[in-house]
Amino acid sequence: MRPLKARGRTLNENGHALICTPLVARTADVLQAELATILPKGPDVIEWRVDFFEEIHDPARVIATARMIRQAAGSTPIIFTRRAAHEGGAAIAIEEDKVITVYEAVCASGAIDIIDYELSQSAANKVRLRAASRKHDVAMIMSYHNFKNTPASAELVGKITDAENQGADIAKVAVMPQSPGDVLVLLEATLTASERIKIPMITMSMGGLGAMTRLCGWMYGSALTFAVGQSSSAPGQIPIEDLRAALKTIQRAVSGG
Amino acid sequence: MRPLKARGRTLNENGHALICTPLVARTADVLQAELATILPKGPDVIEWRVDFFEEIHDPARVIATARMIRQAAGSTPIIFTRRAAHEGGAAIAIEEDKVITVYEAVCASGAIDIIDYELSQSAANKVRLRAASRKHDVAMIMSYHNFKNTPASAELVGKITDAENQGADIAKVAVMPQSPGDVLVLLEATLTASERIKIPMITMSMGGLGAMTRLCGWMYGSALTFAVGQSSSAPGQIPIEDLRAALKTIQRAVSGG
Repeated sequence: MRPLKARGRTLNENGHALICTPLVARTADVLQAELATILPKGPDVIEWRVDFFEEIHDPARVIATARMIRQAAGSTPIIFTRRAAHEGGAAIAIEEDKVITVYEAVCASGAIDIIDYELSQSAANKVRLRAASRKHDVAMIMSYHNFKNTPASAELVGKITDAENQGADIAKVAVMPQSPGDVLVLLEATLTASERIKIPMITMSMGGLGAMTRLCGWMYGSALTFAVGQSSSAPGQIPIEDLRAALKTIQRAVSGG
Repeated sequence: MRPLKARGRTLNENGHALICTPLVARTADVLQAELATILPKGPDVIEWRVDFFEEIHDPARVIATARMIRQAAGSTPIIFTRRAAHEGGAAIAIEEDKVITVYEAVCASGAIDIIDYELSQSAANKVRLRAASRKHDVAMIMSYHNFKNTPASAELVGKITDAENQGADIAKVAVMPQSPGDVLVLLEATLTASERIKIPMITMSMGGLGAMTRLCGWMYGSALTFAVGQSSSAPGQIPIEDLRAALKTIQRAVSGG
């Protein structure tokens, strides 16, 4: 598995999947309560899904809240993600240009470590965010989500190599299986991509059918798996306690006892 | 998943994988101790690997021991398996004809529910055992093991359809992966076979790499998974308590909660 780095620190040093729990609260107060529930469970990474945050239109409030999360989370790396509605995120009332401004301000704040932005966005916006994130030593995920189905393996590998070619530090692909076979397509594409690219990947097959990829994806090259701390952010996520126990079982079996 | 039946009873009624623990002791006394350890862990099925039993040459001792196992196991179904050395079993000193005599006597004893015999054995011996097992209402697994590598999907599907064509009640395929991709081959072959045959299947990818198939194979059509009660009988088997917990985690995720 490729090293997944943020601010010069390699996060997946043991070669196992990192466990990331999403924050999906709508207000700073509820985020604080969510953190109080999630942090004792010891996630390796936290993702703030700011598309759920009702003050997303106000960069000052977003930055103040990011700082609150940083203070609570200590050295736990934070991914800042506005998931676009067309890729499964919550609908928001502001224009994409305003979103970019918020992302830039958050990168400059030093409160977060990683941003996630969709490959499907305009080249201009991706270039702007790549520049802002690089300037402030923030890692950048470029992501592809498909909540309807699982494209063919070659298309999935194409998304991952696109992310690398466009300068991403990390590639992410999350797709919905319509059959057990689709889950194998995602794992096979992950394996194929891992032989072609140099950056780390995060891949998963969503929903109940795809749950096994949240446990076994690391064997195919996926560096991070999302688990429920308090509330899920996508279908098929497993509670962090159960995910960690099952991961340990598999890791013990893989290492021969 | 197809119903896996023994003596008219459907064993996998909830549609989930049955958990089977092997007995691998060399003597009746040690088998008794092994049962005392294993049975409280609640396996759905027990497999007596009689190739490890040092009195395998003596049909009367084998039957007496099978009856002891039956008495201890109550209604838990028992698979009686002499795994051939060329398919990963323990070396034994008796001729195949004598092995068949032992199998026939055990079928007639009423002490066991299912037998396992290799597809690679002679047609005459398979026919003899099929007749003896059918006469005494014992289900028959026809199996293929490969401890070196994972043949191509079409060959694996061929083994499974061969088992059905030769009259097996249950087909079993256990292969060794040499790469994470081989594990996907086994799962894909299981899925393909499940669409072609009418009998239930037991499939797995062995070793550490294959451990995920012991947890997720049921989603691809495998009706039974082997877990360690006290001692493993093949590489990659997971302790029954850990396997059951991880299976529950996956089953909850698959059923959407």
